[in-house]
Amino acid sequence: MAKFMDVHRDMMGITDEQLEDAHIADIAIQDEEGVTFEHAWADPDDGIVYCLSEAPSADAVRRIHERAGHPPDEVHPVPLAI
Amino acid sequence: MAKFMDVHRDMMGITDEQLEDAHIADIAIQDEEGVTFEHAWADPDDGIVYCLSEAPSADAVRRIHERAGHPPDEVHPVPLAI
Repeated sequence: MAKFMDVHRDMMGITDEQLEDAHIADIAIQDEEGVTFEHAWADPDDGIVYCLSEAPSADAVRRIHERAGHPPDEVHPVPLAI
Repeated sequence: MAKFMDVHRDMMGITDEQLEDAHIADIAIQDEEGVTFEHAWADPDDGIVYCLSEAPSADAVRRIHERAGHPPDEVHPVPLAI
């Protein structure tokens, strides 16, 4: 298992409720790929959402997000963390 | 106080020790601007570092990082979080 930071763009105006709904949609199916979404942070003005997860691969993260209806623009392994 | 996610690019090949040294340089002076750097994650292959902080403003985050020797490429307020 490894840590990943994925990025969603063009999310201008995202609300607290929309972020929460998206997260709920992810965690509802994340076990099917062995992914655990741990945190998400959103900048509604610039339309950027960052998600931190633990997962077996970047593809697993991507598949869960795609199936939940919000494919990420980038998925980065982040093996270094503080 | 608010949460911020800042991004550093062109950090290809960053090591665990370099990430830690950079973080230590930040926290040594962060109190002067009321900033608290909470976490950092690095993708050495794509050369991206993400830093999560609590701070009075994006400019305060930027100033600490600049003075510590690693100006960020982006600083995003992230008022929404899970």
